[in-house]
Amino acid sequence: MSDKDQGGISRRGLLGATAGGVAFGALAPRAAMLAGGAGIATVAATAPASAAGKAVLAPGELDEYYGFWSSGQTGELRILGVPSMRELMRVPVFNRCSATGWGQTNESLKIMTEKMTEKTRKYLAANGKKVHDNGDLHHVHMSFTEGKYDGRYLFMNDKANTRVARVRCDVMKTDAILEIPNAKGIHGLRPQKWPRSNYVFCNGEDEAPMVNDGKVLDDPKQYVNFFTAVDADKWDVAWQVLVSGNLDNTDADYEGKYAFSTSYNSEMGTNLGEMMEAEMDHVVVFNLAEIEKGIAAGDYQELNGVKVIDGRKGQNKNYTRYIPIANNPHGCNMAPDKIHLCINGKLSPTVSVIDVRKLDAVFYEGAEPRSVIVAEPELGLGPLHTAFDGQGNCYTSLFLDSQVVKWNIEKAIAAHNGEQVDPIIQKLDVHYQPGHLKTSMGETLEADGKWLVVLCKFSKDRFLNVGPLKPENDQLVDISGDEMVIVHDGPTFAEPHDAIAVHASKMTNIRAVWDRNDPMWADARAQAEEDGVNLDEFTGEVIRDGNKVRVYLSGVAPSYSLEKFTVTEGDEVTVIVTNLDDVDDLTHGFTMGNHGVAMEIGPMATSSVTFVAGQPGVYWYYCQWFCHALHMEMRGRMFVEPKAA
Amino acid sequence: MSDKDQGGISRRGLLGATAGGVAFGALAPRAAMLAGGAGIATVAATAPASAAGKAVLAPGELDEYYGFWSSGQTGELRILGVPSMRELMRVPVFNRCSATGWGQTNESLKIMTEKMTEKTRKYLAANGKKVHDNGDLHHVHMSFTEGKYDGRYLFMNDKANTRVARVRCDVMKTDAILEIPNAKGIHGLRPQKWPRSNYVFCNGEDEAPMVNDGKVLDDPKQYVNFFTAVDADKWDVAWQVLVSGNLDNTDADYEGKYAFSTSYNSEMGTNLGEMMEAEMDHVVVFNLAEIEKGIAAGDYQELNGVKVIDGRKGQNKNYTRYIPIANNPHGCNMAPDKIHLCINGKLSPTVSVIDVRKLDAVFYEGAEPRSVIVAEPELGLGPLHTAFDGQGNCYTSLFLDSQVVKWNIEKAIAAHNGEQVDPIIQKLDVHYQPGHLKTSMGETLEADGKWLVVLCKFSKDRFLNVGPLKPENDQLVDISGDEMVIVHDGPTFAEPHDAIAVHASKMTNIRAVWDRNDPMWADARAQAEEDGVNLDEFTGEVIRDGNKVRVYLSGVAPSYSLEKFTVTEGDEVTVIVTNLDDVDDLTHGFTMGNHGVAMEIGPMATSSVTFVAGQPGVYWYYCQWFCHALHMEMRGRMFVEPKAA
Repeated sequence: MSDKDQGGISRRGLLGATAGGVAFGALAPRAAMLAGGAGIATVAATAPASAAGKAVLAPGELDEYYGFWSSGQTGELRILGVPSMRELMRVPVFNRCSATGWGQTNESLKIMTEKMTEKTRKYLAANGKKVHDNGDLHHVHMSFTEGKYDGRYLFMNDKANTRVARVRCDVMKTDAILEIPNAKGIHGLRPQKWPRSNYVFCNGEDEAPMVNDGKVLDDPKQYVNFFTAVDADKWDVAWQVLVSGNLDNTDADYEGKYAFSTSYNSEMGTNLGEMMEAEMDHVVVFNLAEIEKGIAAGDYQELNGVKVIDGRKGQNKNYTRYIPIANNPHGCNMAPDKIHLCINGKLSPTVSVIDVRKLDAVFYEGAEPRSVIVAEPELGLGPLHTAFDGQGNCYTSLFLDSQVVKWNIEKAIAAHNGEQVDPIIQKLDVHYQPGHLKTSMGETLEADGKWLVVLCKFSKDRFLNVGPLKPENDQLVDISGDEMVIVHDGPTFAEPHDAIAVHASKMTNIRAVWDRNDPMWADARAQAEEDGVNLDEFTGEVIRDGNKVRVYLSGVAPSYSLEKFTVTEGDEVTVIVTNLDDVDDLTHGFTMGNHGVAMEIGPMATSSVTFVAGQPGVYWYYCQWFCHALHMEMRGRMFVEPKAA
Repeated sequence: MSDKDQGGISRRGLLGATAGGVAFGALAPRAAMLAGGAGIATVAATAPASAAGKAVLAPGELDEYYGFWSSGQTGELRILGVPSMRELMRVPVFNRCSATGWGQTNESLKIMTEKMTEKTRKYLAANGKKVHDNGDLHHVHMSFTEGKYDGRYLFMNDKANTRVARVRCDVMKTDAILEIPNAKGIHGLRPQKWPRSNYVFCNGEDEAPMVNDGKVLDDPKQYVNFFTAVDADKWDVAWQVLVSGNLDNTDADYEGKYAFSTSYNSEMGTNLGEMMEAEMDHVVVFNLAEIEKGIAAGDYQELNGVKVIDGRKGQNKNYTRYIPIANNPHGCNMAPDKIHLCINGKLSPTVSVIDVRKLDAVFYEGAEPRSVIVAEPELGLGPLHTAFDGQGNCYTSLFLDSQVVKWNIEKAIAAHNGEQVDPIIQKLDVHYQPGHLKTSMGETLEADGKWLVVLCKFSKDRFLNVGPLKPENDQLVDISGDEMVIVHDGPTFAEPHDAIAVHASKMTNIRAVWDRNDPMWADARAQAEEDGVNLDEFTGEVIRDGNKVRVYLSGVAPSYSLEKFTVTEGDEVTVIVTNLDDVDDLTHGFTMGNHGVAMEIGPMATSSVTFVAGQPGVYWYYCQWFCHALHMEMRGRMFVEPKAA
């Protein structure tokens, strides 16, 4: 390490990311990296059959953890069981769901559109749409109370359309979506950990003009980026901070003082060469109390209704600090020891360990920003994310090496201080190209060191060939012993980026049947009251209101309350269905044949859908959720009469 | 059995479905049936941990079978590995897919709309839509050559919008969808087994006026039902047959002579009481050669461009025969012995076994229709479907009893002939309320008797509670020994109805990388040639054509060929992306920020998407399929200029 630069990083370690050069070809030759040849580390000793057994549940046995999985571009939240790695539920969030009618029911449309920006609303309306058809859901995290999961909410982002969403854990349905103004491409997302998740922190990844109205286009010098704090209860933007550089991943401390975001493009470059140009990028540290004070003091500009603090470099304020980190850092992970924050190097082979107790000095005593770095172990090629076992050990994914490296924080600190000690405990080959990885309860104070899930981006030869599109491979690793052991290969559809494993004991408020007073269908209830219909009793009513027709149906297996109803071609028909089966697992559906209409109605829930009556004729509606031996017979007819001439 | 009626069925067996009475409440008390109390059979001896082990693969081990799963109202095809029961891939068919852009790319829109009826096209256009948002995909079956899977195609239905679809097994993508005219609610679907799958047989479940234009509405006497044969190669309707009663499930024989369909509503009733009224419903037998002769002889009417044969009861023709079957039969399963067809009683506790060799006599010698029944064992409550092990044994799902019953055909025939023999070998409790069930290779001449998959409609307490909406439970049963043993509980999202398990050795033509000459993007290729763009070379071109702009991008990890392009607000922008990474598993994506636009581009594939440029400003596009260490940097900018004033 003779050529250490000012940051203490070996230049050799910077993997060819020389200033101004686009050396990516050299640093990760594709053929070697992905073609499955010599570039991929040979398959390590796979688990013995007995090891696999640890993840196997006998029929009827329950999992110990709820796994909450992002689904990337699929746009949904997934619930898996851990350790069985079985998908227990899909929760539609940013996607359209054929089964549940998410994106089609009035209840879901309200949630998807209520906090949409006017700009998007206008764009969609001009193109005959109400909502986007897609989302790119990267990060799922649970609400915290005092550093522990509290089982209330799950929060998640949509990078594609700059949104964040909240899922209610009592019913496992999305209850709020918010399009973030000003920012572009919400990527990293984490809830505040302490004292509770008052904020959800959201990184804007993409640079754009502050007022993005076309007056400034190809002039990157005028581009900015936004860090956003969402009020998790009100579900509105609390404030935003203008930053230098773009933002990638984020995390929060265990004291409620700081949030952190990595930037892979401190250069504000717009092509690969420019984005890799600087040898050092940075992590931004946000000082929550100072920002709140600044807002209270009126030190902000208002932009599209949002209070925006200027936290860019060069401001003589205490809102932010920028800690230099070697080239294009990615993952940002706070350890459950409450002290150490790990910043993963991506193009640097290092993880930079920040002691968050040293940040006050950077803010208030003029300490050098990198004085907070207490260790910077070289771990291997392409470190992306780090997870924790609560016993002082870290697990870092190495994308290029296709490995997970287990290392010890205290030993890394000792090595950084010049002691002759190797912090690396074990390297494990994974299959292949790991991104995020997570330990059970590992992002909380209750990290338990039992399981590690490694979300591998390539599966290649690990499963039967299913054509050119392959699944990802979410590998389960037993970390309870001295050695990490892979016990399960878990194929998943495009594309989990992140996951958490929450002990089942945390999920105490989860329901099996809906409460009839649930706010989800408050609008339908208000309309029913206006129409003189009791939604809670077995009833079948058809209310005509000009060319609008409201059809109130109750469902009790295996029948709807109406075996037929009549409308006129072109009528705007709203069907409101209440499932009066107060029975665990007895979901009904409502599908209107040849109208592209279908929705889910859970036990004791109400759901509604609005559509235009098609051309004259007989159309059947039916229950599409198998509910009874006579389920096939749970159907009825809609008569569409011709319009009067 | 003192009170046998003319059909040889014990009246006691008819489960209370007395003529004219709506006795469903008595026959399946909901509380007992679904509430998890005494009504559900107590959990049988669950598998010992060692038994579960048979379904467990060590990390890296491949499954022996491809499982092709329907997804019901989710609208997709699923590929699972058997016996690991892991989901290896989701193939969008009738649904919209946020990840792949199915329902949004030009290639998918062409497939979804090309063979849509004019009626639907008009309805959608009038409502600002191009395609339906949902589908209800019940039955997936592979193409046959001489009674064996041939690995060419998978066929499947959409009950919701009366469609059938075909998936190419070489790339595992949908390549053809057909909306069936005249018929309503395509439910049962099976390919012809012999000599090859020239036809795909499709059951119309819902009764409607023959000309469904609103002139006839609530007059069920004028309703009809259609049986449809689709030409599997041309992907058009070959012919239809008008039938008496509705149609439920279907199957075909191993000689290419007959197809069969059950009817639960021979009464043509329109409510539950009427649909259960008759003690006997029927199975319709279709005589393929006679129908083809009738068509050739011009004995048809043409309806919406389709040749329709009248095969209703009372026609003095040889197109169809109606075999009486006890109340509301459901499943229809041809045994691999080439001889026996099993019709499952649903409201009758029986399976009616038809010897298909006896059908010629019914058609040509005036034999009594029920003379073809050679056995009718009473198996338990709610028999829905039957599967086969190729060794003379049958596995029938009992919905109400929550059991699978294993029984022997030859013994059932002997019992029917008066011998004192019990055909029932074993009853196995399953969890809970099983519908379809399938044995490995069991619907082919190569039934191998290794695995049975039981698709249970209720899972209740078998998994961690995930809220009011529960997964289904696809249980895997080892049938290779003398006793059936449950080895795995498989949670699945709403709602697999059917599945097949195809030995991996049959899937010899499956690709890992697309052929650049694939017809999937033929339109894009033709347009590129017109535009003077070589789609097969690394290229970035922007072609303006009035207010239409075509943007040709190549993708090679981690860059697109253009880092920016400029359009004008309101332009119709078509982005055509070619993935030039000839690397297994290296899929790229294209997402246009805040435009609701995203699509998949597989290795060496071309995909295109058309959208309207939004309000002026800078928008980023990016690759949403993790492709490289610098994947996050694979992005570029679209500049939207204001319209000239």
